[in-house]
Amino acid sequence: MPDISTLTLEEKARLVFGADFWTTVGIPEKGIPSAMLTDGPHGLRKQTGGSDHLGINGSVPATAFPTAAATGSSWNRELLTRMGAALAAECRVEEVDVLLGPGVNMKRSPLGGRNFEYFSEDPLVAGELGSAWISGLQAMGVGASVKHYAANSQETDRMRVSAEVDERTLREIYLPAFERVVKQSQPATVMCSYNKINGVRASENHWLLTEVLRDEWGYEGYVVSDWGATWDPAVALEAGLDLTMPSTGEAGPAAVVAAVRDGRLDEAVLDRAVQRIVGVHARLRDARTTEATFDADAHHALAREVAADSAVLLANDGDLLPLRSEGGEVAVLGPFATAPRYQGAGSSHVNPTRLDEPLAEIAAGSHRDVVFAPAFRLDGETDEAMLQAAVAAAARAEDVVLMLGLPDAVESEGWDREHMDLPQVQLDVLAAVAAANPRVVVVLSHGSVVSLEHVVGKAPAILDMWLAGQAGGSALAQILFGAAEPGGRLAETVPWRLAHTPAHVNWPGGDKVVRHGERIYIGYRWYDATDRDVAFPFGHGLSYTTFEHEVLAVDVPDPAVAAATVRVLVTNTGARRGTDVVQVYVGDPVAAVDRPVRELRAFDKVALEPGESTVVTLELDDRAFAYWGDGGWTVESGEYVVEVGRSSRDIVAARTLTLDMPAAVPSLDMESLYRDWLAHPAGAAVLAEVVAAGASGQGADLFEDNDMAEMMLQMPMVKIADFVAPGRGAETVRGMLDALERVRA
Amino acid sequence: MPDISTLTLEEKARLVFGADFWTTVGIPEKGIPSAMLTDGPHGLRKQTGGSDHLGINGSVPATAFPTAAATGSSWNRELLTRMGAALAAECRVEEVDVLLGPGVNMKRSPLGGRNFEYFSEDPLVAGELGSAWISGLQAMGVGASVKHYAANSQETDRMRVSAEVDERTLREIYLPAFERVVKQSQPATVMCSYNKINGVRASENHWLLTEVLRDEWGYEGYVVSDWGATWDPAVALEAGLDLTMPSTGEAGPAAVVAAVRDGRLDEAVLDRAVQRIVGVHARLRDARTTEATFDADAHHALAREVAADSAVLLANDGDLLPLRSEGGEVAVLGPFATAPRYQGAGSSHVNPTRLDEPLAEIAAGSHRDVVFAPAFRLDGETDEAMLQAAVAAAARAEDVVLMLGLPDAVESEGWDREHMDLPQVQLDVLAAVAAANPRVVVVLSHGSVVSLEHVVGKAPAILDMWLAGQAGGSALAQILFGAAEPGGRLAETVPWRLAHTPAHVNWPGGDKVVRHGERIYIGYRWYDATDRDVAFPFGHGLSYTTFEHEVLAVDVPDPAVAAATVRVLVTNTGARRGTDVVQVYVGDPVAAVDRPVRELRAFDKVALEPGESTVVTLELDDRAFAYWGDGGWTVESGEYVVEVGRSSRDIVAARTLTLDMPAAVPSLDMESLYRDWLAHPAGAAVLAEVVAAGASGQGADLFEDNDMAEMMLQMPMVKIADFVAPGRGAETVRGMLDALERVRA
Repeated sequence: MPDISTLTLEEKARLVFGADFWTTVGIPEKGIPSAMLTDGPHGLRKQTGGSDHLGINGSVPATAFPTAAATGSSWNRELLTRMGAALAAECRVEEVDVLLGPGVNMKRSPLGGRNFEYFSEDPLVAGELGSAWISGLQAMGVGASVKHYAANSQETDRMRVSAEVDERTLREIYLPAFERVVKQSQPATVMCSYNKINGVRASENHWLLTEVLRDEWGYEGYVVSDWGATWDPAVALEAGLDLTMPSTGEAGPAAVVAAVRDGRLDEAVLDRAVQRIVGVHARLRDARTTEATFDADAHHALAREVAADSAVLLANDGDLLPLRSEGGEVAVLGPFATAPRYQGAGSSHVNPTRLDEPLAEIAAGSHRDVVFAPAFRLDGETDEAMLQAAVAAAARAEDVVLMLGLPDAVESEGWDREHMDLPQVQLDVLAAVAAANPRVVVVLSHGSVVSLEHVVGKAPAILDMWLAGQAGGSALAQILFGAAEPGGRLAETVPWRLAHTPAHVNWPGGDKVVRHGERIYIGYRWYDATDRDVAFPFGHGLSYTTFEHEVLAVDVPDPAVAAATVRVLVTNTGARRGTDVVQVYVGDPVAAVDRPVRELRAFDKVALEPGESTVVTLELDDRAFAYWGDGGWTVESGEYVVEVGRSSRDIVAARTLTLDMPAAVPSLDMESLYRDWLAHPAGAAVLAEVVAAGASGQGADLFEDNDMAEMMLQMPMVKIADFVAPGRGAETVRGMLDALERVRA
Repeated sequence: MPDISTLTLEEKARLVFGADFWTTVGIPEKGIPSAMLTDGPHGLRKQTGGSDHLGINGSVPATAFPTAAATGSSWNRELLTRMGAALAAECRVEEVDVLLGPGVNMKRSPLGGRNFEYFSEDPLVAGELGSAWISGLQAMGVGASVKHYAANSQETDRMRVSAEVDERTLREIYLPAFERVVKQSQPATVMCSYNKINGVRASENHWLLTEVLRDEWGYEGYVVSDWGATWDPAVALEAGLDLTMPSTGEAGPAAVVAAVRDGRLDEAVLDRAVQRIVGVHARLRDARTTEATFDADAHHALAREVAADSAVLLANDGDLLPLRSEGGEVAVLGPFATAPRYQGAGSSHVNPTRLDEPLAEIAAGSHRDVVFAPAFRLDGETDEAMLQAAVAAAARAEDVVLMLGLPDAVESEGWDREHMDLPQVQLDVLAAVAAANPRVVVVLSHGSVVSLEHVVGKAPAILDMWLAGQAGGSALAQILFGAAEPGGRLAETVPWRLAHTPAHVNWPGGDKVVRHGERIYIGYRWYDATDRDVAFPFGHGLSYTTFEHEVLAVDVPDPAVAAATVRVLVTNTGARRGTDVVQVYVGDPVAAVDRPVRELRAFDKVALEPGESTVVTLELDDRAFAYWGDGGWTVESGEYVVEVGRSSRDIVAARTLTLDMPAAVPSLDMESLYRDWLAHPAGAAVLAEVVAAGASGQGADLFEDNDMAEMMLQMPMVKIADFVAPGRGAETVRGMLDALERVRA
């Protein structure tokens, strides 16, 4: 570990800013090497030559793994860990110290421009998969940078907008994935977001960067700004930001030096940041005990495995899939078959080592004849001749594979979508093709959720590949002909329409403010709470085989301790090997506060041979039962419902468990309601005394059971006392509070 | 006008508090009489003898008119004015100076405990009807007290809860009814609510009580606290509260005197409050130029007219209604037929001069035999014998009138409902009765919306009487047999289920906070925005005749002035006289901010003989097109859609109009986005100069059309400048802003 005590103030000030776009400042003569940070979560994007201003230009070839929108659907921790390790190997070969990922933000709206970089609408899925990815990456001595911390759910005005979110919503929805990642995997760096949270920039948010992240969660790495997220470096350092990226030239370091000199910034705060940055990089280097190698073929194969395990079979009426490997002609339609859409645009764009062409892979994947027609234009213009050619091909073929999706230009970092529809030309092709040949498999390529209102019912089979990476084409071919099974389950709900989505009436805000009016109810929590039909629910995904689930036990070792073990017997009742995701939801139907109908609290993925059974054991900890209220986590006594489901809307078994938690005595104050006094173990007695002693007599009848009782319950005691003895309410309640103190003492 | 300059400090301090529960302090020797204020909006509730503590006990007999839930459905300004005048006559006879009403709060949720006292979910309906009522009342020298100002949408924790509402939502939804009432009718008093608005108690809210109410709207009366809403009298006076009710004994005046003496309260503030209170009461007395008389029979007849004009015929399949006056037996079922539910519980409860029994009125209303069965218990207990007797009666009868509704105990001031269902025993009776005889007319008595999920389709006719006042029974009989027509249209949407309602995931809040997460989207604005099917839409109501509507013209005299005149030809195409409500909605499909699909912007009610036509002229002013943004009202240039509908979901004609408003030049600042600079008439030139002059050269390509262009649009110019020349962004943009100043100069 380099000794920072020999550094000058000027040197230290330089160390908390980038040296250029992608590297940190090195001071070799003091034993501090420069470190390289590069995008992005699904593949290395190390720029070649001089980096450009926004960092969008060419980069060294690297494996383009499926994006997080895909890998989120894998629900496969072990696979994400292997993917992290593979990415680390590529980083090591390219001498990259920190890979900027994973993105664990919640998908608040289907319109979010960076949704493709995020895992889920659920904090448990995002946190677990992000954590697994980090573990794989960091075990090889490459640092992660979990991003974008926090509440960075939109691109619209992202550098200025304030996300107005109540604390319960932050604690239950927007922070837990970060919390889980920090506690389980200690990412080398945390990247703060551009936006403000409740009026305070993330980069200047002491509560977020220090109180929550470090004091509560015990974070040990350093906090880096999203590129350009720092506005006032001294304020940011004070709040807990350590490294500002990219370089700000001489301006940033000079400002920090000046701030220290004029007393606005304590030099110890600067020292702390330098120590963290230098320390993290040193520890990463120390962890590099193995030789760095990179087998492009093996990584391509891994990318294929991930793509298949992330593909979600949304519909498969009449078991259209898998297609037979012998048979009539297969018509492959759509331009994505020859020019696949396989990753997102923006800072995460990777220059792939190879790229599988879906059409070629499909042709090679069976003994059947394959014909191709482009079917539609990506620019959205109608082309009647293309359409008719596609229809003709479909009519002649036995089966049709129609590749639909969002063109590159539609979704990207930097802006949000304005609707969630597939291009109309594509829907027109689907309608015409399906009329010509009903055996249509729709394959979807896209980064964020699209409306399937005009797809469901038109095509018997719908296979969602998301953005499947460079080997997506071969993974698709394997799935189509049954060489691989679609292993994914939806990590986000597919709603019917944009108007049904949780943030709809608050999105994307205005006047530099976006309100989280839906509160904790995003994703399936919203659709359940508002009793809304959806196209495909969270957790949904069909298999080529079938599974049965039996809840063997829900054990609560001690009802006074919020913890339970759920044991589920899973049996592969079908005819081929397959993977299943056991999803455990918990609900608290009778609670002191409003709560979601159900929340995913545990999951595990298992692979089973035909006829094979296994017992999956899932642990529920206190947070599986808790809500955030009154400044902390609360677990109530009473009954909880534990459900095992194939999805959030296909619950196959439910059990109740009962907790009997130590009761907290509520505190009473001058504003407490009559009902609070009645409910308080000692307060009721004090109240009775007051009533009994009622000097004026005119008050006594108030407290008897009468028409007013219900109305009085919600009145502050002080107001009731004021009605009884005008002007003396405060005096009376002060006396009651004194009496309460005496009872306690 | 009494001269307050002779009053001592102590006297003035006494004058800003009640003398007891219902009267103000009088100082006869200084020419200041006491004034009496009494509940409530649908009838006089002057308590007899000593008033009780919460003011719920017995009162002098007075006409119990239909509650606001009913009268809101009348959409009849002229009728509300007559009702106000009748109430004033009763007040005058009883020497009441101020009648505490109308309630013009918005119905945010069907669960609101005081919904029955409010008119609508729409500010135009509430404001117009409230204003009409006040005009009638005050013309007779009795003051109104428009309440509860403001954002008092729930009873839960109403004395402590803070309604967190963004300003646009306040300005567009929660304040306009108050604004309209103030501007059109200058109510003698405005009653501030119990709750806080964005953390500040209404009674201590200077912005609300002074800046908005007086400075912006020009309010001239006095502000009275809701009973017990004052906490700190000096703070409240300073904020703009004038009169605290009820008496606080010696405590309040003493506190005010002390505050003046120790300099915390300017005596001029106290003088101002006294002047307002004394002045309003004096002006009211001066306006009493006619003799006070009260014809109980005439008022009863008016109450009947109002009830019929407020009754909403929700469904009438096969024209079951009106029933024939000759024919077989009519079975009248349900306890409400003999013990009607006709008003709400709480502070507005009136002791009626008479009470029409529905059963007796129905029996007298035709030549048909009428049988009665109580059918179900009001306590919700199942009684199989009662059920079977009702079914037997129904089976024998030709027609069935089944009276369902909410028992008294279910809805009241003081608490909110927890669900919106009718009691299950009533639904069971309906199912059984409808099975025995499909000719069922369901008559509903209730104050707030109930789910009709299990009523629609079961009964061909559904007649909603709301809480119809003391003559509701005879009005019902008239409607059933066609002597009167049901004149009402829904002033609030009837949703299918509670989970569909706008505030559902935010209701009723917790930790003393309730968030208005649905923002401006309440009522039909929500159901339209979220694409939700409803049982019966806002504005819906069937008639015994039929109407046709033709839009003759939508005239915009000057496109640079936001004003239009809509002329609608309405024709009674049916066979009997009837009333029709012409509803004009305006939408702005392409706007700079999110806007409701449509908003009611004008309405008028007309009565037409069979075959008769009339041209209804409706004026749209600037507010019909405006939204609240950036601290003021904005009317955008462009196309607006003007719709005429039978309801918000039954639009019969639509026209577009175009406004060409003078463009406001947006201001640019250090945080302005690249797109703001591009859009600014002078900014674009400055930007071009900077690009052309780009010293480093490396910046120039950034501004060319490339992949980054879209992403850059939403970046602050200062951040782009920082990427181009690290650390020099602020300097660059300051230079640009200087250049902009020079261009302007």
